[in-house]
Amino acid sequence: MNDLFLRACKRQKVERTPVWMMRQAGRYLPEYRAVRAKSDFLTMCKTPELAAEVTVQPVDIIGVDAAIIFSDILVIPEAMGLHLEMVESKGPKFHNPVRTREDVHSLKIPDPEKSLRYVMQALETTKHALAGRVPLIGFSGSPWTLSAYMIEGSGGKEWKYAKRMMLDEPELMKELLGTLAESVRLYLEAQLAAGADAVQIFDTWGGVLTPDQYKRFSLEYIHQIVSKLHRNGQPVIVFSKGANHSLKEIADIGADVVGLDWTIDIADAKSVIGDKVALQGNLDPSALYSSPESIRREVKSILQKYGKGTGHVFNLGHGIFPDVPVEHAQAFVRAVKEESPQYHS
Amino acid sequence: MNDLFLRACKRQKVERTPVWMMRQAGRYLPEYRAVRAKSDFLTMCKTPELAAEVTVQPVDIIGVDAAIIFSDILVIPEAMGLHLEMVESKGPKFHNPVRTREDVHSLKIPDPEKSLRYVMQALETTKHALAGRVPLIGFSGSPWTLSAYMIEGSGGKEWKYAKRMMLDEPELMKELLGTLAESVRLYLEAQLAAGADAVQIFDTWGGVLTPDQYKRFSLEYIHQIVSKLHRNGQPVIVFSKGANHSLKEIADIGADVVGLDWTIDIADAKSVIGDKVALQGNLDPSALYSSPESIRREVKSILQKYGKGTGHVFNLGHGIFPDVPVEHAQAFVRAVKEESPQYHS
Repeated sequence: MNDLFLRACKRQKVERTPVWMMRQAGRYLPEYRAVRAKSDFLTMCKTPELAAEVTVQPVDIIGVDAAIIFSDILVIPEAMGLHLEMVESKGPKFHNPVRTREDVHSLKIPDPEKSLRYVMQALETTKHALAGRVPLIGFSGSPWTLSAYMIEGSGGKEWKYAKRMMLDEPELMKELLGTLAESVRLYLEAQLAAGADAVQIFDTWGGVLTPDQYKRFSLEYIHQIVSKLHRNGQPVIVFSKGANHSLKEIADIGADVVGLDWTIDIADAKSVIGDKVALQGNLDPSALYSSPESIRREVKSILQKYGKGTGHVFNLGHGIFPDVPVEHAQAFVRAVKEESPQYHS
Repeated sequence: MNDLFLRACKRQKVERTPVWMMRQAGRYLPEYRAVRAKSDFLTMCKTPELAAEVTVQPVDIIGVDAAIIFSDILVIPEAMGLHLEMVESKGPKFHNPVRTREDVHSLKIPDPEKSLRYVMQALETTKHALAGRVPLIGFSGSPWTLSAYMIEGSGGKEWKYAKRMMLDEPELMKELLGTLAESVRLYLEAQLAAGADAVQIFDTWGGVLTPDQYKRFSLEYIHQIVSKLHRNGQPVIVFSKGANHSLKEIADIGADVVGLDWTIDIADAKSVIGDKVALQGNLDPSALYSSPESIRREVKSILQKYGKGTGHVFNLGHGIFPDVPVEHAQAFVRAVKEESPQYHS
């Protein structure tokens, strides 16, 4: 197996910097769109063969060093009893958002082997299809990020109801987050049992909080998950997009890898965090709109900032955009492969 | 005149912390919506009596310590020859975006006394209506933020075309930014001549850049404006939303006040920046959805973090949202007025 990714996560020696892309199984790939044309998004998530098919695509087509299971962070809230709909070109919608004490109390911690069995089957099918070529990453949303969608009922910008609950009913908010933390822990453990070689916690909306709120309402519950998670050495990646104010604290909760978006200099992140964890990131996803030459220049700049030695998993600072040309994604991965060996000699 | 705002900008002694809100002349006010019901947004900007009327409203209704002229950052690109349309519930649209060398070269630096005369008239009318009650703030978008809209043709998330130009044609991008910097400088000087007591540069999209890009393509051109701006002691406020990685550099360009969004602890900002400039911010605008009691608690927390002494202009970390209850905006301003005197005794 190409285990560069796992070794870099553990800060073990590598011959070159491994690379993968968030949302690499996605609409920028014609092969993905062909599958998607025949079935809707949630059906793809819930059909292990389809999920496995698109999960493997970027390994073959782009040459990434890890696969990440095709799924959605909102399958957990759905398993907890919320009615999830993916509205075309609008995003997710919950028809029964969580707004009151009764709403919070009615949520059940899902048994992942029952209500999320299809995710485990997708992992098993994918493992088989990958045949040991590259490691497979499982994932979950963070408690705060999941709660934001659950309370709001959809994606948002202001997060009106979620922030109102946080400020006006902090104890209720914490109860919800505690329930989610336990649900996420069980879900990630089930994914590891089903064959995931690593797991990532996506805290996509961590950056919309104040630093105080982030520590109390987001990081605290990610910490609970990571500290209780039963695992056999599989790395945990924590990515709180935009939470650059708290990198030191994130590095302290016991995760192996801290994800970085593109709004921080990776050299600064390294100097703040030290070498206790690996770093994942941090190319601006919009850089993939530029020419292969520009992409290579940006890759070289990040490699140079990170400098010599292991502990860097190259990635974008956010998911790849659907209208990025495939050749640009390929140029990105090629540039990492060709430019990074000199930093590991 | 209540000159608390101007004194705090200059770090002179004040009896209490002054407060105003970005987008305070806006849709959350029924009185604003009554004016808006009778004319479209751009007509309001271009009719000095209407602009003055809504500019003064929050002084009367909310009790803020400064007025900011009702206008839009995109009036400059329009004056440069772009065809601007405000699409209801969708945002601004330029029908002829700036994509090529020819597009950039065809842009003219506007004479603000001609093509933006209506803004100067609005300032003059507002000054008369305010009758010295509170200072009047003029403003402009930053070169980068204006260019992002001009290149993209609309608001964005990926800023595909703008970032592509930045990476693939940096010299062309710099030419555009240079033209914009000169246009903004002349525009701000005309506003000062028309009676603005202070000016703010809104770099709303500074935070979507990498730290390197921010310094080279955004801050550099704000610096050009501030260093060349002819003024008679009127304060300049620079607000690069999300650019918390470069606060020290922003504080070094000669502005009097640095704006903060809500994703940084104001105590940390103060310790990074020192006391060379005043700070403006930094309440999470979503906090205004919570109860007046919660709002007061958040206000107290920020006042305490900033601590004793002048140099703080209280504000939101971004514009007030249109669906905030008026009483909550009032509760915010009241809390600042009641809780801050103890920090200035």
